[in-house]
This record gives sequence, C-alpha cells and structure tokens, in this order.
Amino acid sequence: MPKVGIIMGSDSDLPVMKEAADILEKLGIEYEFKVCSAHRLPKETAEYAERAEERGFDVIIAGAGGAAHLPGVIAAYTVLPVIGVPIKTSTLSGVDSLYSIVQMPRGIPVATVAINGSANAAILAAEIIGVNDEKIRQNIKNYRRKMAEEVKDKDTKLQELGATAYLEQKGGK
Amino acid sequence: MPKVGIIMGSDSDLPVMKEAADILEKLGIEYEFKVCSAHRLPKETAEYAERAEERGFDVIIAGAGGAAHLPGVIAAYTVLPVIGVPIKTSTLSGVDSLYSIVQMPRGIPVATVAINGSANAAILAAEIIGVNDEKIRQNIKNYRRKMAEEVKDKDTKLQELGATAYLEQKGGK
Amino acid sequence: MPKVGIIMGSDSDLPVMKEAADILEKLGIEYEFKVCSAHRLPKETAEYAERAEERGFDVIIAGAGGAAHLPGVIAAYTVLPVIGVPIKTSTLSGVDSLYSIVQMPRGIPVATVAINGSANAAILAAEIIGVNDEKIRQNIKNYRRKMAEEVKDKDTKLQELGATAYLEQKGGK
Amino acid sequence: MPKVGIIMGSDSDLPVMKEAADILEKLGIEYEFKVCSAHRLPKETAEYAERAEERGFDVIIAGAGGAAHLPGVIAAYTVLPVIGVPIKTSTLSGVDSLYSIVQMPRGIPVATVAINGSANAAILAAEIIGVNDEKIRQNIKNYRRKMAEEVKDKDTKLQELGATAYLEQKGGK
Amino acid sequence: MPKVGIIMGSDSDLPVMKEAADILEKLGIEYEFKVCSAHRLPKETAEYAERAEERGFDVIIAGAGGAAHLPGVIAAYTVLPVIGVPIKTSTLSGVDSLYSIVQMPRGIPVATVAINGSANAAILAAEIIGVNDEKIRQNIKNYRRKMAEEVKDKDTKLQELGATAYLEQKGGK
Amino acid sequence: MPKVGIIMGSDSDLPVMKEAADILEKLGIEYEFKVCSAHRLPKETAEYAERAEERGFDVIIAGAGGAAHLPGVIAAYTVLPVIGVPIKTSTLSGVDSLYSIVQMPRGIPVATVAINGSANAAILAAEIIGVNDEKIRQNIKNYRRKMAEEVKDKDTKLQELGATAYLEQKGGK
Amino acid sequence: MPKVGIIMGSDSDLPVMKEAADILEKLGIEYEFKVCSAHRLPKETAEYAERAEERGFDVIIAGAGGAAHLPGVIAAYTVLPVIGVPIKTSTLSGVDSLYSIVQMPRGIPVATVAINGSANAAILAAEIIGVNDEKIRQNIKNYRRKMAEEVKDKDTKLQELGATAYLEQKGGK
Amino acid sequence: MPKVGIIMGSDSDLPVMKEAADILEKLGIEYEFKVCSAHRLPKETAEYAERAEERGFDVIIAGAGGAAHLPGVIAAYTVLPVIGVPIKTSTLSGVDSLYSIVQMPRGIPVATVAINGSANAAILAAEIIGVNDEKIRQNIKNYRRKMAEEVKDKDTKLQELGATAYLEQKGGK
Repeated sequence: MPKVGIIMGSDSDLPVMKEAADILEKLGIEYEFKVCSAHRLPKETAEYAERAEERGFDVIIAGAGGAAHLPGVIAAYTVLPVIGVPIKTSTLSGVDSLYSIVQMPRGIPVATVAINGSANAAILAAEIIGVNDEKIRQNIKNYRRKMAEEVKDKDTKLQELGATAYLEQKGGK
Repeated sequence: MPKVGIIMGSDSDLPVMKEAADILEKLGIEYEFKVCSAHRLPKETAEYAERAEERGFDVIIAGAGGAAHLPGVIAAYTVLPVIGVPIKTSTLSGVDSLYSIVQMPRGIPVATVAINGSANAAILAAEIIGVNDEKIRQNIKNYRRKMAEEVKDKDTKLQELGATAYLEQKGGK
Repeated sequence: MPKVGIIMGSDSDLPVMKEAADILEKLGIEYEFKVCSAHRLPKETAEYAERAEERGFDVIIAGAGGAAHLPGVIAAYTVLPVIGVPIKTSTLSGVDSLYSIVQMPRGIPVATVAINGSANAAILAAEIIGVNDEKIRQNIKNYRRKMAEEVKDKDTKLQELGATAYLEQKGGK
Repeated sequence: MPKVGIIMGSDSDLPVMKEAADILEKLGIEYEFKVCSAHRLPKETAEYAERAEERGFDVIIAGAGGAAHLPGVIAAYTVLPVIGVPIKTSTLSGVDSLYSIVQMPRGIPVATVAINGSANAAILAAEIIGVNDEKIRQNIKNYRRKMAEEVKDKDTKLQELGATAYLEQKGGK
Repeated sequence: MPKVGIIMGSDSDLPVMKEAADILEKLGIEYEFKVCSAHRLPKETAEYAERAEERGFDVIIAGAGGAAHLPGVIAAYTVLPVIGVPIKTSTLSGVDSLYSIVQMPRGIPVATVAINGSANAAILAAEIIGVNDEKIRQNIKNYRRKMAEEVKDKDTKLQELGATAYLEQKGGK
Repeated sequence: MPKVGIIMGSDSDLPVMKEAADILEKLGIEYEFKVCSAHRLPKETAEYAERAEERGFDVIIAGAGGAAHLPGVIAAYTVLPVIGVPIKTSTLSGVDSLYSIVQMPRGIPVATVAINGSANAAILAAEIIGVNDEKIRQNIKNYRRKMAEEVKDKDTKLQELGATAYLEQKGGK
Repeated sequence: MPKVGIIMGSDSDLPVMKEAADILEKLGIEYEFKVCSAHRLPKETAEYAERAEERGFDVIIAGAGGAAHLPGVIAAYTVLPVIGVPIKTSTLSGVDSLYSIVQMPRGIPVATVAINGSANAAILAAEIIGVNDEKIRQNIKNYRRKMAEEVKDKDTKLQELGATAYLEQKGGK
Repeated sequence: MPKVGIIMGSDSDLPVMKEAADILEKLGIEYEFKVCSAHRLPKETAEYAERAEERGFDVIIAGAGGAAHLPGVIAAYTVLPVIGVPIKTSTLSGVDSLYSIVQMPRGIPVATVAINGSANAAILAAEIIGVNDEKIRQNIKNYRRKMAEEVKDKDTKLQELGATAYLEQKGGK
C-alpha cells in the first residue's frame, strides 16, 4: 500500500513531479500519483486530503505553480505532514509559487522545498518515514553515500584530466 | 438582504477590511461580514462560498495575507465575481499576499486590487453591481465627483496658502 | 451589440489578448477589439472610455505591459468595471506591468488578473455579466464542469498509463 | 528524553524560536534548546547534528537569518528531518534567510516554513512525530479544533457587535 | 512667469515635492505647484499638460506613488520634458511607483529620478533649463561647489574630532 | 557639430544604444558615439564628461549594465543633463542596472529611462533640446503624430481582418 | 602608518562605518577615515584612490548607499583590494546599494560584504593583511575564539535558565 | 605550490569557475581546482578548509548556487580570505546564490563578487596576493592596461566605421 501521495494541480507539473517518484522508488517507498486541482476540483481535492489518513498515507507531496494553493488546501484537511513543491512559472520563475506555499499562516504548516525541488521532496518524505523505519533510514544513508561518492569521483576525474579536458569529455558524452 | 459578502481569514484583517464596508455604506450597498479561515475552517469556507449564490450575494470581497488562499478558495466554489484584497504582511509587505491572490490559474479568476486596497474592492463591487443597477452607478458617479472636488479644493487651497503654510495647517489639524 | 471591449496598447499584445476573445466566444458573450495606446493616442483612449457606457458595454478588459497605464486611464474615464491584464515584459517579466495596474490609488479600482492572464479576464467579465444574466452564469458553470472533467480524465489516464507512458504519449501528440 | 531539538544561530533568534517550544509543550512533545552557530562554532554544530540520531531526536528545528546556513549544515550531517525557520532580517526582511534555507541543492532537503514561522515549525514537527504516534496526532487534531473554535467565536462576536464595536473592544483589551 | 510646473497626484506627496521647490528657489528658477490626480481629475490633468507649452513652461516635474500614472499621462499630452518622481509607498516602498514611471513604452519618455528624489528632479530641471541659460548653469555650478565644500568640511571635522566625538557632536545638534 | 553624446561602457551595449542614434537622426539631431568604460578608462571618462560642455554638447546619453556607474560618473563631472539607459543584464535582467542608475544621491541627478530604453533616451534628449529649439520641437510633434497614425492604422486593420487573420498576416510578413 | 582606508560618501554613513574601525582596532590594525563623495567630489575621490598605493595602504573599505558608486570608482583607480559595504537605504533597504556594488563588470572587482556589514569588512581586511602577517592572522584567530566562547556561554546560560528566564534577564539588562 | 584554491559544489559550476583559472594563469598565479559539496561531503569540505592554511594557500575562491553555503562553510573553518562566486540559477537567476553568500553574519566574512563573476574573483585574489607581491601587482596593472587598450581600440574602430558597419563586422566575425 502506498505510503506517499504525490498530488499535482495539472499534468503540466508531471515532468517535475515524476522526479519525486523516481527517488521514492530508489528509496524503496511506495507512492501514488494524483492529478487534482485545488481550484477546478475543490471537493475532490478536499476529499482526497480528508481520506489520506485512513487510506494509510504517511506523507503527501503536493506540487503547484502560480497562486499555488494545492499544498495549503491539502494541509487544511489533514494532519499528515504535507510537503509543498513550488513549480517554476513562466512569468515569475516560481517566486509566486514559493510565496504561495511557504508563507502559510500559523496553525497549518506546509514543509516547503526549493522551486522545482521535487527530488528533495521525496528525500524529505523518506526522512519523515525513516523516523520510525530503520530500513528506510538506512536506504537514505546509502543514497547519500552514493551521492557523496559521485562528487568524489568527479573531483578525482577533474584532478586527472584538468578542467579543459574534463569539460570536453563531459560535453562529448 | 446583503449584496456583498466581505470575508476575511482573521480578525486581524478587520481594520483594513472595514474600509470596504464604510465605502459600501456610502454607496448604498448592503453587505455582511464574515471571519472564516480557508485553512482553519476549510469546510465552513467552502460552504459559505457554495451558498453565496443562493443566498443572493452579487459579489464576494475576500481579504487575506501571506499564503493568501482565501479569495482563490472562495472562487473555486462559486461563479460569483470574487474580489481579492492582498493584506500587507510584516515580513514581505504583502508581495506574498499579492502573488498568492493575483496569479490564479486559468479558469478561476480573482479580481485583485492593491495591497490593503479594500476601499477599491468596495468601489469595484459597486461597479459590478452598477452594471445592472442605474442607481448604484449614479452613486459611484456622485462619489467620484466628490473625490474630484476634494482634489480641486486642495489645489485651490495650496495655491492660496503656498506649500509651507499648507503643510503647517495640515499638520496642525 | 458587444458587451465587452477588449482594448490593448499595442498589437504586440494581441496574441495574449486574443485568448480573452476565444473564451468570451465559448461563453456566448459578444466583444469588440480595440488597439489604442494610452500614451500615443491619449485623447482617443479617453474618448473610448468615456463613450463605453453609452455604447452599451458592460465590462472593459484592458491589457498593457511595462509602465502599463492603459487600464487605469480607462478606469479614470468610466464607472464600468475595468479588468486589467498585465502583459509579460522582456526585461521585468511583467512585474512592472502588474505593479502599474494593481496598485491603483483609492477611488479608481482596476480588477487585476495574473500576468498574461487574459483567459481569466474573460471569465471574470463573464462572471460580472452573469450577476444579472442567468444564461451566462449557466455557461460559466458548464465551462467549469468541462474543465473539471478534463482534469479528471487526465488523472484517470495517468492512473492507467503510469507517469512514464503518460509523458511519452503527451510528448508524442 | 527530548524528541525535538530546537537550534538557533544566535540568542537574538530566541524570541522567535521560543514560540516553537511553546507549541511543542501544548502538543505534549519534549524538546531541547541549543544556541550554536554554523559559522562561529562549525565543529560543535556538525557534532550536534551527527549525534542527533543516536541521542534519540526525531526532528531538528533550526532557525537562522541572513545567509542562513544553519538548517542546511545540520541537514548535511543527519538523515533526520530538519525544519528550517527563516528569521526576519533588518535589511532584507528575511528574503535572504528564506532563499538561503529553501533553495537547498538536490539530495539534502530542508523542510522550510514561513519567515519567522517557528510556531508552524513546531506543528510540522508534531505532524512528523504523529506519523507513528497516534496520541500526538490526536493532540494536533485537538489543537486544530481549538483554533477553529477560536475563529468561529470571533466571527460570532463580530456578527453580534458589528465591526466598529468589535474593533473598539479588541483595542480596549 | 514660472518655468517649471510641479504637479502631484495628492497633497500627501507635498512634503516630498516641496523639496523640489526649495531647490528651484535656490537655483533662481520660478515654479508653480499643482495638485491634480491623473485618475480622479483625468481631464484637468490632460488639459494642464496640453496647455503647459503655451503657458511657457520649460519642464514639468510630476510626483506620484503606487500605480503612478501621472508623469506618463502628462508626458502623453506634451512634448516638454517631463521628470517623474516615484513616491515611496507604505506597502512596496516605491518599487511600484518606480516601475510605473520608468518603464514607459517607446515614444513617450519620462525622465525618472530616485524614489522620493524630488531634490534631484529640481536640479535636473535646472540642468535642462541651463542648456540655454548660462546664468542658471552658473547657479548649478555654484550649488555643486557648495555641496562639495560641505563634504570637505565634514571630512576636515572628522579628521579633527575622530569618529566618536564627531558622532556625539552631530547627535547633540 | 554634435548636440548629443552617446556613450556606453562596452561595445556589447551598441546594439541597444544604436536605437538612440537612429531616433536622433530621424529627429534631425547630430550626435557622436563614444565607447568609454567608467571602470577601465576612468580618467578618459572623466575627461570626456568635463569637456562635454565646452565641446558644445547639449545632452549626454549614457548606457551601462550591471553595477552601472557610467551615467553617474559622467553626471559627476558635468552640469549638462545626463540621460541614463539601464542595459538589460543576463543575470538580473537590468534591475541591477536600473537601481545603479536611478538611485543617484541628492545633488547629482541622472534622467533615467526604461531598461534598454535607448529610443526614449533619444526622444527625451530631443525634448530637452526642444525647450529652446522650435524646429526640433516640431520634429518631435511630427514623430509623435506618425506614431499615433501607426497605432490607428493597426486598429483599422484589426477591425477589418479580425484577430486571427491579423495575426496570420503579421506572422507571415 | 595606516594600513586600511575607510572611506564613505557621506557622514550619514559614519555610524555604520565606525563599526569597521572598532573591529580594526581590536585586531591591531591602523586605519584612517575619509568622507569623500564619488559624485560631489569626483576628482578628490579619484586622487585618493590613485594615491592609496604610494601612501602605503593595503586595503580600502568603501561604504555607500543607493546608486553606490564609491567602491567601484575607488577600484577603478587602484589595484589594491577594495571592500564594498552596501549601506541600507530608506527606500530599497540597501538592495540598490548591494546591486550597485556587487555587480561590477569584468576586470574591476569589489569585494562585497553584507548590507551594513562593515564589521565583516574590517575582518576581511584583516584576513587580507593576515595573508602575509602572522601576527594579524593570530589576532583574527583569537577574535574568532572569543566569538565562539560567547556563543557557548550563551548556550550554557540558556540551558541553565530556560528560555523564559533567559529572555527576561536579557531584556532586563 | 598553488596559492589559490578554486572550489565548487558541483561540476556543473565548472564552466563558470574555469574563467577564474584562466585569469589566474594570465596573472601568473598557481591554483588548484576542487569539487567538494558543503552538503554532500560536509566533512571533506571542512577538512579542505581547515588544511588550506597549512597547505600554503593564500586565498580560497568558492563558487556555489541556490542555497549557496559552500563559501560560508569554507570561511567558518579558515582565516584565509574567502571569495564567494554566486552561480546563476535556473529559477531565481542567482539572487538566491547572491543572498546566501553575501549576507554572512558578523564575524565570518565572504568577499562576494557578481553573479557568475568568477573572472573578477580571480582578479580580486590577485589583488589580495599583490598586497605583498610586487610582481603580481605589476601583472594586474599590465592586465588592466591591456583591458583599457581594448576599449580604446573598440572606440577608435567605432569612430572609423560607424555603428552600422561596426556591428556588421562584429557579427560577421
């Protein structure tokens, strides 16, 4: 049964939100996608949020852009932790999304990550689940170790090749 | 029966939103106040918006600050025109409120006025009602005429007194 | 006879403003286009606004970019509701347009929608007309229902295909 | 034993961060304060974060202002969920703090709340703990119910008194 | 006969705009004040601008705040140089005023000075008049020389007193 | 002999600044180009500004981007009117240029136009020269009349063709 | 002989810039104050910068606000490291100063510190001098150690007193 | 032995940071590249910074984007001067990077240059080294002279060719 619900207001957000799913898979966490607009389907959105607890979700990840109300609306209907992903917009680059999500009033928090930061939303969801799940916590540690190794490998390669050759090789890939 | 509903997320918005009521009174339009948070009372907010049409409202004025979802949530549940008033905030001066209200996604508009611009929200509501109400339209014209006279009077007084005396007299009031 | 005037300062705004016309058509509302600059044709602009009431318009939609004075200038000459569409600019992305339109002084409101949000300007115009026109109000409800169905269909399809196949199919269209 | 560590870079952040502690107490969650600068005491900060897991913390709340590195530095040394509170600054009002906290790179998330939003940081921490603690989850629900009642009471009072008397009474308190 | 018209949208701008008048007096240039709102008195504003040339003005200085259309509207009706003074606003600190004034479309320029920079508006007006008036040009040079002397005097005093005594003496004045 | 000096900090600004020259030619005003960096050639810049008056210039137009000091440095060395053109930058879109030019301290004004607004800089220069040159003033009026006609022609064409055909024809050009 | 020149455009910057002097004294570095405006005394500023090297300065600290050209102008005339302190402004809070200082063009860098960050400007100057002065480097280390101790002491006190008593005692001082 | 360490958080910053290396080479200063993330490899980053002094570095140049903590973290572990390069980001254009680097708290400065300004970071590093190295100082002077000549040459060519031909020839290269 899925532990994490990934909800977005429009399928145009899917390319960004799919990164969250990819990370969750790597971390061994089941998830479910949902397209449901806070403004076009307000009742369905409310119902989704209200039923999230009984359906066994641990965390909801909600992505939205512009006057991005989806994460806050979800948070209003559940006491599960809600993670908000501000989606980059063509006019205001996502500052509008960020402010609409992060500046929640006292009482109803949304855990906000970077603009288009759905990968980090997934890792944060894993950290939250990991609070009581030693296996997931271990998976995160392994994932981090791998990330660290990748940075080290890049450094090693840069030392060997020098910047010019490194950039050529990278560009050539 | 009230024609305009003035709703706000917190009673801390009342000093700003009361200006809307004062203008509506001057323009001969009945109104009703409501304190109802989109995040703390989401169902009551939804119900308020859903019943607005059958209750006979013509326009809803909604004021909110920060991640200001109230106007958009109201708009999601009614096809009445919704006017949003971004409330000034202590941290971001209301830019957060403005973006959260004006940047609504395609399909669900909110008619946004200036930060703390509740007086203009009331005039806009009157203009909307005036589309089919000649008396209200006339009231707006009279109101504008009065405003125009006030500016003219100030100019006349400034020409008479000069700037120094004018400012002294103004400060002395 | 047209109910809505769609005015813009430059024909470079037409691709954005045409969306408003397309929505108005779908909602069964007649409209009229006008290119008329507040700065290059100030008298013609004033005259257009002054005559809007007697010509039978219900609402004016005005789009402008940069130091976007057109909506405010129109509003200064009429008591019809004026909807302002801030046009995205190449340098400040439309923040300049937004501030120039939304921050109107007390007394002369402009109902501001999102940057490039001309589709919502049209829906807002319909909502305003719908205050006294049951048929238009019904058209908006039908339009919203259709929007809602589209979101539901997308969700159903995403559940069926999964994210990867969904994105491929979408990209392939 | 404390479940939540509340860390801040300077004791000047204490008035804001104390709100988090007050909420945690109301929700029945033990916490511990720590003043420890990411820049002036980098090793102690690293050690605090590294030992957080073995010491039995579930969540770390970190508040910082300006180039606000503390939450991110803590997050780099632990896989516990880290909640960042951007502190309002005298020059940039906390936009600097917000960007420094929320725009974390892929791999190391910080759950960001509103500028000066330490109360919400505490509720978010409770929601995270509540994922596996039914009692805490119930406490949050009770807390929310109380908040909702307060809004309703204010509305009732406003309906009874009207805006003028309401504001007078409020001011008079 | 006045050479410079100083126009402002509201008498609340007078304390700022009076600085322009004070400088013009020091530089030996006659001026005239006018309070006239682009939005509340659009026709009077247009007429003022249209008649400015025949009345013998050389330059118009226009101050306005928020959606600050006054300088641009004046500029639309005259080919005299128009200097715009963005007035600081309580919500957006004058960024709204600045963008509304400086971002004028191609064809109708407004010479914009700093937010609340009416003193510089006056000096700029003098420089414009000085293009063909050797006496005014000389007055500006004298004014600059005096400013330069003042800076030098302050430096001399700071060298003599040291910073602590200097600040004490300054505070004690 | 040239009446207007067009100076820029880098030849990368030339495509933008050339527009100023093109307008000046249309308005019958002689000009001179100069590439001279305030930072790389500070003495030459100072000398250029100091000699501008005796060389017979009436106005200096200075374009610069980023920490755009050129217009202010020129203004520090001459009492001729200096028009600043903030050049759009790749990182901050010219907000940096705008603030660096428009926010000049009391005493030394720069007449600032829109970001990349060199065309308007030229028209403003013409308006300044026109204060004492009836022929140039007439040229500006003719130029404006032509601009106005162009807008009218576009409107006429749009009325004839409708939006769809208009856009097709425009795109097809 | 002074190693560091502290220059500012106006004596209104002295309260901020004095902090730099206080830190330099603690770190055992001689300094000299100078009030000299890039715009009002451009030649004196240029001369100051040109002579800085031969006079034996190692670093120049320059503070300025608004269109803050002073650090960049100094940097144009010397190859000594120039540290820029953006001074907070009443309208744009120092964002204007920051952009005017930090966004220097390729070739002429200014080492920029935080808005009003003159204390850090002094420490940075010490670090630069410390590159070849072991004693100064040691002084910085001692200064840092003291700062670290102060943070530790505050933490210890907070642990002992608890937040309420700590804040009371702090407030009571 | 390298005098300057050039460190970056990700190899995606290398194309920008390589410019620093190219300038250092021209100025005759040895350097070393390092890829090391403050968040993914916090201990390695700390160790790198701690050992920088004993390894003989004079200056560290650190580039980072988004919540750009790398320069500040390096600065926390060393008393060598640290130069921070804010990297342009796809969402906030580097304003996030800039604020995260420049707004450092009292005690731990980072010498910040322009967004993507790694070339200037290198020149600043050279100026710092030049404080005690006459040869490097001379190299900077030569480099500046060459830059100045290039500007002069461009101006000469522009005078000869005129703007149209100049731009054609430049485009044709």
